Amino acid sequence: AVPLVAAVLPAGGSGERLGGATPKQFCAVQGRPLVSYTVRAMERISWISDIIVVVSPQNVETMESIIEKYGHKRVTVVQGGLTRHRSIFNGLKVFAESELAKHLLQKPEVVIIHDAVRPFVEEDILSKVVMAAKEYGAAGAIRPLVSTVIASAADGCLDHSLERARYRASEMPQAFLFDTIYKAYQQCTDYDLDYGTECLHLALKYCETNAKLVEGPADLWKVTYKRDLYAAESIVKDNLSQEVCVIADVKEAVAQVGFLFRETLKSQIKVEAISVSLSKNNSHLQNIFSGQCYNFVCVNDKKDAIEEAQQLVDMLEKSNIPVLYPVVFVLVQLDISEKVSFSIGMEELTRIKTFAREVKKKNILVYGLLMQSK
Amino acid sequence: AVPLVAAVLPAGGSGERLGGATPKQFCAVQGRPLVSYTVRAMERISWISDIIVVVSPQNVETMESIIEKYGHKRVTVVQGGLTRHRSIFNGLKVFAESELAKHLLQKPEVVIIHDAVRPFVEEDILSKVVMAAKEYGAAGAIRPLVSTVIASAADGCLDHSLERARYRASEMPQAFLFDTIYKAYQQCTDYDLDYGTECLHLALKYCETNAKLVEGPADLWKVTYKRDLYAAESIVKDNLSQEVCVIADVKEAVAQVGFLFRETLKSQIKVEAISVSLSKNNSHLQNIFSGQCYNFVCVNDKKDAIEEAQQLVDMLEKSNIPVLYPVVFVLVQLDISEKVSFSIGMEELTRIKTFAREVKKKNILVYGLLMQSK
Repeated sequence: AVPLVAAVLPAGGSGERLGGATPKQFCAVQGRPLVSYTVRAMERISWISDIIVVVSPQNVETMESIIEKYGHKRVTVVQGGLTRHRSIFNGLKVFAESELAKHLLQKPEVVIIHDAVRPFVEEDILSKVVMAAKEYGAAGAIRPLVSTVIASAADGCLDHSLERARYRASEMPQAFLFDTIYKAYQQCTDYDLDYGTECLHLALKYCETNAKLVEGPADLWKVTYKRDLYAAESIVKDNLSQEVCVIADVKEAVAQVGFLFRETLKSQIKVEAISVSLSKNNSHLQNIFSGQCYNFVCVNDKKDAIEEAQQLVDMLEKSNIPVLYPVVFVLVQLDISEKVSFSIGMEELTRIKTFAREVKKKNILVYGLLMQSK
Repeated sequence: AVPLVAAVLPAGGSGERLGGATPKQFCAVQGRPLVSYTVRAMERISWISDIIVVVSPQNVETMESIIEKYGHKRVTVVQGGLTRHRSIFNGLKVFAESELAKHLLQKPEVVIIHDAVRPFVEEDILSKVVMAAKEYGAAGAIRPLVSTVIASAADGCLDHSLERARYRASEMPQAFLFDTIYKAYQQCTDYDLDYGTECLHLALKYCETNAKLVEGPADLWKVTYKRDLYAAESIVKDNLSQEVCVIADVKEAVAQVGFLFRETLKSQIKVEAISVSLSKNNSHLQNIFSGQCYNFVCVNDKKDAIEEAQQLVDMLEKSNIPVLYPVVFVLVQLDISEKVSFSIGMEELTRIKTFAREVKKKNILVYGLLMQSK
């Protein structure tokens, strides 16, 4: 059974290592603030009930405007403290101390702590740390060390180097039984709150809770330097171009063509395919539109295909997707009638062209493909 | 006094962490293999006498063709061993064991060891580790830890976390007195050669040489994952577009315009400016052409400007620069004669256009700018 889970995202860092005025969590990646990608990665996961974003006081308004602009849901903005641990503690308090939130949020069984500057977190690792936290009380993602770690002596010379195989880099996400980590924060000293960095360490020190370490994927890395923003930008671009959704009407002939499209495309690109009755407002379709897909192939066989395409465009628009990037929409119109006529096809294409010109203003690029077969 | 310095670049890694068939040092970054950038970074530095690139046996030919294609100088390719330490040892042997090289290279006083997958190394840090090695016997670049380092217990749980302030990531470049590191390698065990990772550790263990740790810049990071290749690509692009060289004839009026260009441009972009007699083969000019600059503004006032531009294009071609990226060449022709005539200007521009069309085939983009003033 999945426990009640909430997530706290510390986003209060000043980003001094990045060497810029804007803290890295608010830097634009493909035109969208980094923190928005991380929030999106969390809210895609249906079993996370609340997402707490902790920002420094001067960034509360910025964060609230990001939430509004990108249509984020289930997010509460909380003011952070002067250090990372103080900020996380503030984030946890909204589940336990009623005077700090407008309304007290329901206390979760397990809480995920995840950095706002690790945007590419997937459901798999989140689910692993949550289940491990439920069993052990605490859990965190780890990665192999990239560089050898050494201790320096007081004179600035090498003291000793660590045996790489015994050590790991502690990354995020981490997860805790809420009561455990909250108790640890309540008991820890000012020194811990000011100079500590490791939540797992606090759970061990104050609650004798041993943390389970979970090997995580490479994409968990933390955006720290300017080069990491470059890398994030390229990864986002890559992801956008590498997924397509094939939508086909439920009618047999059309569904078959949709299936063939999927089979042909899937060796090249990640393909999601659905057969739906296009004329109805479909919740499955709406889910896909609010996902991360920006490329659609839509197969249809009706004369009034433009009207249905218009419906899809309306749904896309409402989903807020085209605000971020151009959506590509390949409209495949199937003509399986007996009397094949070239001129009718051309007429149809002209209608699609006019339609395409119109929706281009909405950042949606429509391409028409007319298929005639006997 | 600068000691005699050589560099050994281990480039034998298999790149398993990158998740691709091509080892990362041979992956293309803006169309050019990563290792070529690193070699270039080394050969730009006049006080490095020899550059040894150690590659696995199956990549010797690849490496040799890279050296030829990009016109690298002072480079010797050496076959590596099965592990990193064995490869570095092989690289050092060409200075000490005559049977391993076609001709024995002159033994350096100090040897730099630097990863082929750290392409953005600058003269400043190289010079710092070399001088520290001369004084201490060994030296290495370090960086602050990005993540907390933890030790895991046998049961896969947290054992303890390290106090971040006491530890550093050991990076490259490192430098050693040649005799010290060579002696260390000769004495170390098979276990060291097979499982060790840290050269500084070997110098300490076998030669009681304490290594000086030198804080290095963030750009020293090691290209390890695919995202690091993305980052490298963006950094290379950035560098290319952010430097321009203004070349002006020595004549007073022209040199003045060149000076004004520099003053105007320098708030936007890194500008190098030189005044030269364009009609002569100038060694200063040749140095700039074999540097990292891809954008030139050339100011002239002669009627035969095209002929001089042709000379510059010839020099550029010989320098091999346009092989890598398009070179941008803005040809500013100054007309300070009394009788200003619009039609003469147009004639001149037509000549420039014809010239531009021709040199575009050589990957050099020429833009003409005609300035008339009384």
